[in-house]
Amino acid sequence: MLGLDAAEGAMGGSNGRYEKFLRDLAGLYRDPAAFDSALAGDDGSPVYWVESSTVADGPGALTIGISVIKPGRIGDEFAMTRGHLHERSECAELYFGLSGTGVMLLETPEGESRALPISPGTAVHVPGGWIHRSVNVGDELLSTLFCYETDAGQDYGIIEEAGGMQQLVVATADGWTTRPNPDHRGYRA
Amino acid sequence: MLGLDAAEGAMGGSNGRYEKFLRDLAGLYRDPAAFDSALAGDDGSPVYWVESSTVADGPGALTIGISVIKPGRIGDEFAMTRGHLHERSECAELYFGLSGTGVMLLETPEGESRALPISPGTAVHVPGGWIHRSVNVGDELLSTLFCYETDAGQDYGIIEEAGGMQQLVVATADGWTTRPNPDHRGYRA
Repeated sequence: MLGLDAAEGAMGGSNGRYEKFLRDLAGLYRDPAAFDSALAGDDGSPVYWVESSTVADGPGALTIGISVIKPGRIGDEFAMTRGHLHERSECAELYFGLSGTGVMLLETPEGESRALPISPGTAVHVPGGWIHRSVNVGDELLSTLFCYETDAGQDYGIIEEAGGMQQLVVATADGWTTRPNPDHRGYRA
Repeated sequence: MLGLDAAEGAMGGSNGRYEKFLRDLAGLYRDPAAFDSALAGDDGSPVYWVESSTVADGPGALTIGISVIKPGRIGDEFAMTRGHLHERSECAELYFGLSGTGVMLLETPEGESRALPISPGTAVHVPGGWIHRSVNVGDELLSTLFCYETDAGQDYGIIEEAGGMQQLVVATADGWTTRPNPDHRGYRA
């Protein structure tokens, strides 16, 4: 049994933890000066993390967990995860909002794009074949429950090699919108 | 995107629905007289149902949905689902409590048994190889979010052939407990 504390971003009964620090994220955001400025003022704590439960491997096994992103902005871009396509690209994933206000940014290598709001009580079904990233567009922790096949794997390179995802999730006067990423070079075939 | 209304037991964006009526559940409970009495007073509405989202099939696809059980008792047993083992028995499943108070009853064909409480904010990771059933031990709708591999399949016969699960989830003066099912004949090897 897994007890989730969405407000604290913690999961009892987990057996895996993964943390990302701001210093690991050079190149993720489009505004290098804003990134350097944020890094200069960084307190060194994780900016996003995952706690997960994996109890088996191989076919049929699921990894279940909680993904947590601190609020923040670098330039006009909201705090986000690196994003990935599954190595077994046919593998789907569930995200379910637990706390905070977010956007699930979804793109196919062929150029389709979607930005789906996620908040407590909303589930996002990420079908196989879609690159996906979580973005915190609110001012509190964005916590989501996730579930994917343990042997799905994560391909982060597809985004890095393309100069980032095709769309950026950016701040407006009273919320968020998307705009094209000027550095995006198209995804590898 | 899937919007879940746990209090209503509904899911926006679903493309599948499955309903079970009391009249379909002869033999599920141990007390035939109590079952017949309940059936005589039945209003014919579903006693449990599932709304789900399936967007692909084959390897990697997930089915995501909401499972809802009305509260109630038949004799001293609480309202429950038929329960199943996955046809691909190595397939795990996630259940996450959305509303109400329940128990996830888990058994292996070899005779291990667990009864795990599930309530809003609690996730239960059902590993491959475990027969599982949801039981509503409260007095409101028990709603859970679930996620499993679309091609996992459901084997309901393993429970029926065994005379029911090994343990019953029954009412006490102030809650619930488990007791051995006198009709259980052991699971098929």
